[in-house]
Amino acid sequence: MQLPPEWLEERLERWPVARLATLGPEGPHQVPVVFARAAGALWSPVDGKPKSGAELARVRNVLRDARVSLLLDEYTEEWQRLWWVRVDALARVVRPADPARDPEVAAALAALRAKYPHYERVPLLPEPPTLLRIAPRRVVSWCAGPGALRRS
Amino acid sequence: MQLPPEWLEERLERWPVARLATLGPEGPHQVPVVFARAAGALWSPVDGKPKSGAELARVRNVLRDARVSLLLDEYTEEWQRLWWVRVDALARVVRPADPARDPEVAAALAALRAKYPHYERVPLLPEPPTLLRIAPRRVVSWCAGPGALRRS
Repeated sequence: MQLPPEWLEERLERWPVARLATLGPEGPHQVPVVFARAAGALWSPVDGKPKSGAELARVRNVLRDARVSLLLDEYTEEWQRLWWVRVDALARVVRPADPARDPEVAAALAALRAKYPHYERVPLLPEPPTLLRIAPRRVVSWCAGPGALRRS
Repeated sequence: MQLPPEWLEERLERWPVARLATLGPEGPHQVPVVFARAAGALWSPVDGKPKSGAELARVRNVLRDARVSLLLDEYTEEWQRLWWVRVDALARVVRPADPARDPEVAAALAALRAKYPHYERVPLLPEPPTLLRIAPRRVVSWCAGPGALRRS
């Protein structure tokens, strides 16, 4: 069965982690990400460039092909409580020159700070600031049954 | 930092869930899966056909393009304990006529039953029996630090 709409919304709003799949030159690429909802999209901060100075794979991939998948789910040994939400989406790499002066980006950063208290201690955006803006095209959900419906 | 080899092995052997990404006609496709290691590969059972009678998307996708990604990770609010293992792999759809008489498949089913006691109550393979055989091409890992190294 699908997740009821109010539960789907709750997961998209509050679930703390997702797995992002992008299209790489050698096949699909996946990485766990944090994200927050703001301004009609899901936003995921990119933590900075690896030491090599090369772009992160997810950024390179999105620059080449915007099609991504975001998967929210929770594993538990109680299989009757399993659920997942899959967001088929188009992603864009956003590099705001001045994050505070871009209203969409400012809303995204505020949502990320509100969702993750970690950003009181950890810098949210390194230089240069990079975010993925993930615009859902289709949202599909599944749950094993009523046992999957509980507050996260 | 990477996960030390013994930890990497432990995760591949014992971590109960992974996210499987395949290449779909409209972009990457993801789904949470259970899996077990046997006969030099990772094996994931396919739970059966959806009611529509159509193949599951992951099966259709693998039949068209074998390139897949399997991601193991654990989210925790303690970000210094985060880790992930990404397996870039080639997958094959395996439909054994007689699972008990195919030594690789028999080993895979034994490993799945040993890892998931659920299969004492839940049928492991519906008719027709379908498994994904996932052969790693490259394994990449990351962890935030020594805090990520603890028994799962």
